[in-house]
This record gives sequence, structure tokens and C-alpha cells, in this order.
Amino acid sequence: MAEREPRRVVSGMRPTGRLHLGHFHGAIKNWIAISQKAECFYFSADWHALTSEYKDTSGIAQAQREMFADWIAAGLDPERCTLFIQSQVKQHAELFLLLGMVTPLGWLERVPTYKEQQEQLAEKDLNTYGFLGYPALQTADVALYGADAVPVGQDQVSHLELAREIVRKFNHTFGKGEKPILVEPHAYLTEVPKILGTDGRKMSKSYGNAIELGEDPESARKKIMAAVTDPARKRRNDPGNPDICGIYYLHKAYSPSETIDLVNRECRTAGIGCVDCKKLLLQNLIPSLEKHRAARAALDREPGRIEALVQLGTQKATRVAEETMDRVRAAVKLT
Amino acid sequence: MAEREPRRVVSGMRPTGRLHLGHFHGAIKNWIAISQKAECFYFSADWHALTSEYKDTSGIAQAQREMFADWIAAGLDPERCTLFIQSQVKQHAELFLLLGMVTPLGWLERVPTYKEQQEQLAEKDLNTYGFLGYPALQTADVALYGADAVPVGQDQVSHLELAREIVRKFNHTFGKGEKPILVEPHAYLTEVPKILGTDGRKMSKSYGNAIELGEDPESARKKIMAAVTDPARKRRNDPGNPDICGIYYLHKAYSPSETIDLVNRECRTAGIGCVDCKKLLLQNLIPSLEKHRAARAALDREPGRIEALVQLGTQKATRVAEETMDRVRAAVKLT
Repeated sequence: MAEREPRRVVSGMRPTGRLHLGHFHGAIKNWIAISQKAECFYFSADWHALTSEYKDTSGIAQAQREMFADWIAAGLDPERCTLFIQSQVKQHAELFLLLGMVTPLGWLERVPTYKEQQEQLAEKDLNTYGFLGYPALQTADVALYGADAVPVGQDQVSHLELAREIVRKFNHTFGKGEKPILVEPHAYLTEVPKILGTDGRKMSKSYGNAIELGEDPESARKKIMAAVTDPARKRRNDPGNPDICGIYYLHKAYSPSETIDLVNRECRTAGIGCVDCKKLLLQNLIPSLEKHRAARAALDREPGRIEALVQLGTQKATRVAEETMDRVRAAVKLT
Repeated sequence: MAEREPRRVVSGMRPTGRLHLGHFHGAIKNWIAISQKAECFYFSADWHALTSEYKDTSGIAQAQREMFADWIAAGLDPERCTLFIQSQVKQHAELFLLLGMVTPLGWLERVPTYKEQQEQLAEKDLNTYGFLGYPALQTADVALYGADAVPVGQDQVSHLELAREIVRKFNHTFGKGEKPILVEPHAYLTEVPKILGTDGRKMSKSYGNAIELGEDPESARKKIMAAVTDPARKRRNDPGNPDICGIYYLHKAYSPSETIDLVNRECRTAGIGCVDCKKLLLQNLIPSLEKHRAARAALDREPGRIEALVQLGTQKATRVAEETMDRVRAAVKLT
């Protein structure tokens, strides 16, 4: 399927603190690529964080600061895209309220991740009105900026389909078939390579298996050397299967193609052991971590820079959001 | 139960157009009395109107203008109370979003009027996220102004109890047992006299049985003369029962006590017929309608006055709401 090129893109991330390699390869790398060719709005989804973290919000502000610093250190150019904080653009709340008026409860209840997350995170009491409304808030996030595209992995396509349905219902209800009020966002499918954590599960901060983008080299070395590989490869001379090995996926993300080929071949024949394979990875991974740490350190030498950039971005986002709301309010015809 | 005197009061009304006698005796009359002794915020609940009227919003703005004019013509003094439009104070949307995060779905689903209205108004498709969230938005409406009291009739006490529960949960979640962030509103029980429409049912615009506060005297006369009385009193000489007669309730609202006593006595013995009873009522009702019409006409001679008063009120409401939100945002600790 030939994808149309996005013109305006919105994406957000919950402020969970320092980013790990999974965040970079799953999202930020794509964000950077898209910012070369489209107008981009990237935001800290702090209100979304509240939907599940409302019981303890004490860490959100600091986590958000770390996240913005990691975005920029990783190569997201604040000159090329608008970085902002969701909760500081109040129009998100206003449009969320208005979209809620036309959103059938059944659409929200049928979101596959809804029941799933409620069960998985039972201790968090997610049976709240706010948590159910998550997709309507996401729709507002995107529609406020007139985004024609949202970068998503295959697993999020159904979320975006719901956002499109809500926008269509809103346009139909208040636009009466004339010029659409809100833009229907399309899914811009991005490649999300598999990045496994040190225990072989998906890399995630909450699993304690993550390596941060700016991880201290010594700490990264220890984690990698202790990481799970192919569990069936018990001895040095057993052949391994790189297709199920987290170290191999990291090679694919960090090593040059000759190394990837070598590892892929020699692992299967036990030509290379896990220890040597990991050392090869570290040769390529560590410089990347070092580079990120240097960029973070440079940012830290300019106190207030990130705050100023985000403030500027939030002002710009507010202007664009307010333009959309002018159109929305005229269509809803309240006053 | 001795009620404590309210210090600050909030109440709102959906903008449904020109007010009828039921609106006056059920709400506005109490609003006026309370404004003599407490600081009052009275608003047009236009976002609430959307929860059920989202399919056709074309009449809301004009209906709202009529409503404000009737409030003032009926005696609500804009110097003594703050009149404003809900949708123009965006803080209602922001606090609604935040309250939603801590509001269990079960609390909303259990509201007695929720299922009831969904069934009664099946053609309106009330199975929406916005309609379910109605009580959370109401809670925001009240909590934004630090109201310690909300004037309610006995049938709305359970709604206010829910608002108190949501405020308590919010304070507990984000206040951590320290000074409360939001004020818990108390029910200020007001007398709501029975006002029946011309068909003997509750007076309501949607039943087509209402007499407007500023009804043309000739039209009022016709409606009253044709109105249903005690259905068992078929002939002039049958004794009647004023306790089930809408005309008698209007006497109680508009006639002097000697007339009320006379009607009460003579109806039961067939000493007075319905026609004469109605003529007696009109003697007292028509001057009240005339007075209201004159007050409306005076307002109409000052174009822009109502708009200016409401704009001023909306500015004041916004200042008070923003002070509350400063405290709320500090407690939620997002940035």
C-alpha cells in the first residue's frame, strides 16, 4: 500500500522519565525522520499519565523534564518541531468535553486494550470515568492540530480508527454535511523494530529490564553481559537461535551489517559464543550511549533551555489549538 | 434540621428559552431570596444542554438570551449576583477532566436519573460518554466557585451527595489529608411548590402545557380558561378537590390568602364553579404577567445591556474559577 506523505503530524508520549532504547527505536527515531518532511507537534501526555497514575503524581513533573531532555539529546530538533505539554494547552480539555458528547459509550468499551489494561493493572483502580475516556482525549489531542497523520505501529491502528470515527461523528453532527470541522487523521504506519529487555521480554521500565538511552557505560556493560539470550543455548558449543535473542535485535539496531551477518551466521553454528557476541554489541552500543550522555550533559550546562523551548512550543501549540477551537465553537453554536 | 446559612452559592439552568411559571416558583424565586444573603453565581448550563441536545444546537444561543432576560425581568439583580455562561469559562472543562480521573464509573452508572432519562429520551441517543459524565461536570460547576451550598429540591439531594463524594475522593487523592483543595458543597434545601401545567401534569415546555412568565394576557386567559381542573368534577354542582387541581396551586402562588381560603372551601362544596375560580385567578395572575412583560420591554429598550452584564459576570466567574484551578493544578502536581 502506497502511503501518502504526511503534512502535519501529532504524537505524544507519557512522561515516564528517562527514555530507554525501546522508546528510541519504537518512537523517537521515527519522530525525527518525520520531522524532516512534515510539520510536527510532539507532546508530553501528562493528562494521559493521570488516567492511570492519579494515585501518585509526585514524580510526573521531573519525569517530564527528563523525557524532554532525552528527546532533544536523542536528536529531535526543537527548531523543526513543536514540543509542548498537553495539560498546558487547555483546549485539549474543551475539545475532549465536546467530543465526549457525541461518543457512544459502546465505542469506548469495545477498545481492545480497555478491559485488558484494567485487568493487568488491577491494583491501579482503572475503573474510572477518565480511564474510559482515554480514546476521546487522544482524539482531541490529534484533531486540535489538524493533523492528517499520526505515526503508529500496526498494533495501534485500531485506536486511530476509533479516533477517525469520533471525528466523523463530530463533523456529521455539527457540520451538517458541509466543510468538515475537524480533520480525519490517517495512520502513518511506522516500522517498530523489536527491542527486548535484558530478561527477554519487551523492554519496559516497569519490568526493570531496560537500558536507558543515556545509561552509564559500566552499568550498560553489566546489564548486557548478564542479559538472557537464547534460553535453549545452555553451553558454549550449543548452536543458538538469534531470532529469539534480545542481543541479536540490539545488534540489528546498533551494529554494522557485516557484524549483524556474522552474528546471525555464527550463532546458529556455535561459531561464536554469547559472551563474544555481547562484547561485539557493546563495541557498537556504548559509543551511542556515550554520545547521548554528552548531548544530555551539554543540555544540563544550559539551565532553563529545555523549559524555554517547551514554553515556546506550548505557546505555538496553543495558538494552533485556539484556531481549531474557534472553528469548533462556531460549528457547535453555543453562543 | 437547622440549616446553616449559605455563604456562597452556585446554581445553573439549561438554556431552554423563555421561562414559565414553573421555572420561577421552582428556582428563580429562591435564587432571588438567596442573593439577599449570600454571594451567588448563576449560570447558563449550555454545555449541559449539549449532553442531550447535541443533535440540534441551533436554538441554544437565542434560548440563552431569552433566559437571561427572563431572569433579570423576574427580579434577579445582576448587581447582587454573578451571571455567566458555562461554556465561556473553560476551567469547567479542565476541572471536569481532572475530576473524571478519580470518579469510578459505578458511581455515575448508579445515578437514578441516568438510566431513567436514557429510557425516557430514547430518541435522543443518550448512550454517550458525555451524558454519563453529567454529574462530574456538575461537580466541577459547583467546586470551581468554592460554593458551600447549592439550592436543591428534595429530589436532587442524591445528585448533590454524589458531587460531595467526588469532591472528597479528589481531595483525598490529591490533598493527602492536608487542607482540602476543593470545598464540599452542602445541599441547601429550598421549597419547590407544585406548579402544574394546563393539562394537569408538571408544567414543562416539552409537554406544551406551560404558561410563560411573560405570556401575553389574552393567551394566558385562553390557556387558563381551557385548563384541566379536578377531572372528577364534571358538572358545576359536583364538589371538587382543590388538592389535585392545577388552578388551585396557581392560586397558592399568585392569589392573596383570603382568595386561597375561599377557593379551597367553596370548591369542596361546589359553592364556586371552575369558571369563576379561574376568573379569580386571572385577576391576580395577569398583573404579574404584565409586570414581567413591562420589565422585559424595558430591557429590550437597552440593546446590548444583557450581553454586557453577562460578559462582566463571565469575567468575574473566570477570575474566581482560575483561582481555584491554580490551587487544583498545584495539588495535582503535573508541572
